[in-house]
Amino acid sequence: MCDKCNGLTRREFIQTTAASGAALMLSGTSAMASTKELHNGNIKSRGYAATDTSGVLKPWSFERRPVGDNDVLIETKYASICHSDIHQMKGHWGPQQYPQVPGHEIAGVVTAVGKNVTKFKIGDRAGVGCMVSGNPECESFKQGEEQYCPDTTFTYGYPEASSPTGISQGGYSTNIVVNEHFVVHIPENISFQEAAPLLCAGITTYSPIMKFDLKKGDKVGVAGIGGLGHMAIKIAVSKGAEVYAFTTSPDKVDDILGFGAKEAVVVDDIGNLAPYRGKLDYMICTIPYQYDVASYVSVVKPFGYYTQVGMPEKFELTLSAIGLSISRVNFNVSLIGGMKETQEVVDYCAENNIHPQIQIISADQINQAWKDVVDKKARYRYVIDPATF
Amino acid sequence: MCDKCNGLTRREFIQTTAASGAALMLSGTSAMASTKELHNGNIKSRGYAATDTSGVLKPWSFERRPVGDNDVLIETKYASICHSDIHQMKGHWGPQQYPQVPGHEIAGVVTAVGKNVTKFKIGDRAGVGCMVSGNPECESFKQGEEQYCPDTTFTYGYPEASSPTGISQGGYSTNIVVNEHFVVHIPENISFQEAAPLLCAGITTYSPIMKFDLKKGDKVGVAGIGGLGHMAIKIAVSKGAEVYAFTTSPDKVDDILGFGAKEAVVVDDIGNLAPYRGKLDYMICTIPYQYDVASYVSVVKPFGYYTQVGMPEKFELTLSAIGLSISRVNFNVSLIGGMKETQEVVDYCAENNIHPQIQIISADQINQAWKDVVDKKARYRYVIDPATF
Repeated sequence: MCDKCNGLTRREFIQTTAASGAALMLSGTSAMASTKELHNGNIKSRGYAATDTSGVLKPWSFERRPVGDNDVLIETKYASICHSDIHQMKGHWGPQQYPQVPGHEIAGVVTAVGKNVTKFKIGDRAGVGCMVSGNPECESFKQGEEQYCPDTTFTYGYPEASSPTGISQGGYSTNIVVNEHFVVHIPENISFQEAAPLLCAGITTYSPIMKFDLKKGDKVGVAGIGGLGHMAIKIAVSKGAEVYAFTTSPDKVDDILGFGAKEAVVVDDIGNLAPYRGKLDYMICTIPYQYDVASYVSVVKPFGYYTQVGMPEKFELTLSAIGLSISRVNFNVSLIGGMKETQEVVDYCAENNIHPQIQIISADQINQAWKDVVDKKARYRYVIDPATF
Repeated sequence: MCDKCNGLTRREFIQTTAASGAALMLSGTSAMASTKELHNGNIKSRGYAATDTSGVLKPWSFERRPVGDNDVLIETKYASICHSDIHQMKGHWGPQQYPQVPGHEIAGVVTAVGKNVTKFKIGDRAGVGCMVSGNPECESFKQGEEQYCPDTTFTYGYPEASSPTGISQGGYSTNIVVNEHFVVHIPENISFQEAAPLLCAGITTYSPIMKFDLKKGDKVGVAGIGGLGHMAIKIAVSKGAEVYAFTTSPDKVDDILGFGAKEAVVVDDIGNLAPYRGKLDYMICTIPYQYDVASYVSVVKPFGYYTQVGMPEKFELTLSAIGLSISRVNFNVSLIGGMKETQEVVDYCAENNIHPQIQIISADQINQAWKDVVDKKARYRYVIDPATF
């Protein structure tokens, strides 16, 4: 299990195995192709791509692979912006192949299916998250934790022999071709634009909260109230937790209380955590940069649990061993969630009216939106309308 | 509980509160004083002290406080060398006040007791570990985890108003004055020289192993086979574990198997950990420097536990968040153990013939021994004979 990635980060794994496929520059959209063409020839797509580490995206037309026997073609209705998109395109997690289209929160409609596809038919509402293909023989895959299998292809920037560009290309685009195993159904009672953020922000917070086995009345902390953090609050509140939210943005306090948190704690000074020392049963941290881990961990009860989900630059977290010892807390890191659990969170949020707070933007607003995400100005998820590509 | 140390390491706590007591240079030993003098006047002591960050110790005569009502005076029979001594004297954990006498593995005989002392009488065999006084009103103290109380005075280098030097002075010396709560009994069936290393190396590994609630047949890893690591192997083996030891020193393999480990894995290449991925129930790591945490953690089963006990320079550990996520292991850090548990480990080792493997040295060999500890040449604990001070 995962024997290929010993001593390597997922990103390092990519770096050592990445094929340097040439990027094809083609125009047109899949809507122009016949059904037969979709299965035999490359599919035209249009999106926004990074071409370097600047963090500036540009319009780009490219090709995707034909719809394979186990594939689903999805016409994107909405795709949302995750901080991970920015980290990866800027090279914070290692060198990238460009042009590269980011985006792993994708909601749309199935427009073609391969002959072996059984889960979907044309016209179905469908969602794609952080993964697009994998190896059914892998133990992690079998256990429903596909994200931990070294053979899994992540949605963008991963070597993918079948892709005309040599790497997977993400959701800031008009369409996407995905192995059906990695596609979830989007129920009728949630909009595409509200479903999209569930595919990463939703599952990434839902999965560790469910693994914690939260009991009603448990005191749950959420640190970092952005796209992931605000979903963590809503999900934990819906599960009966008493939620304490920790933010560096004073102007998020009203929103946070509106999401159902019991308290919103503004951490403009690390000392503001002191009154909460040892008070919480569990904490989830979405902060995607280096931070004072031991001080945040200290708000959890001795022998409690703390889950990091934010992924910092170079994936590196430096922590104080002595600080962590004083807390006696179990620190773990969680990476998104498996496909079964991804379907579960989408269904759960739809059934329970748990909707991300979103702002819809057009394609030409993506670059400004990225700056706003970094500057903590997003409230709380930017969702791109692909009709504007 | 521990509210004073939020956002501060124990060391930072010292730095912000340390009294700059003047060091007194006096000669003589406690043996020269009358009983009345021991209770009324400072007590003469002689030992080896660091005077700067060079890592070179020199003979030093100094004074200790008189024996207070709750104190015990112990004549040192043996004191052993812990890697922590070296880290702290070299300033790896923050600036130090010098001269400073290291040593927190101390075994000796009680030579005076304060009027309120009930646990000890003159002539008792006694041991002192990493702590010498504390605050009985502190929650951590009450819970038997004195090491987590911010008011606890550690054995050397801590501000201590009662000490003529202004800081606590450790066990590389002819005697020590300690609050009786922080003294343990040493049973008759273990020698002083073999008991001394139990006071830190023993308790530091015993405490987390006991908290893990080890079951017979559990696969337990031990990383870093020095003073702590070799005790971890012996203790885990005695509790019925199947022990896998990970060392960078090929010439320790025979010893490791002799300690009862099932396998000794030489990690001269980080890839040597790969065959053990996900195999162990638990792992304890004694490595006292930065290392590839995520790769070592990866040998533990998903959702298993990994305890760090080695304290690196600046107490800093940098880990790969993505690497830790792939393992799904709970990472925690443990600091020595409480006083009740310290008595327990001494009794347990004495009863079960679990003895550290030691080399007795004279005072003039301390400086070479420190170099050998850093160079991984210790086999496995140097024990100083204070008669040579």
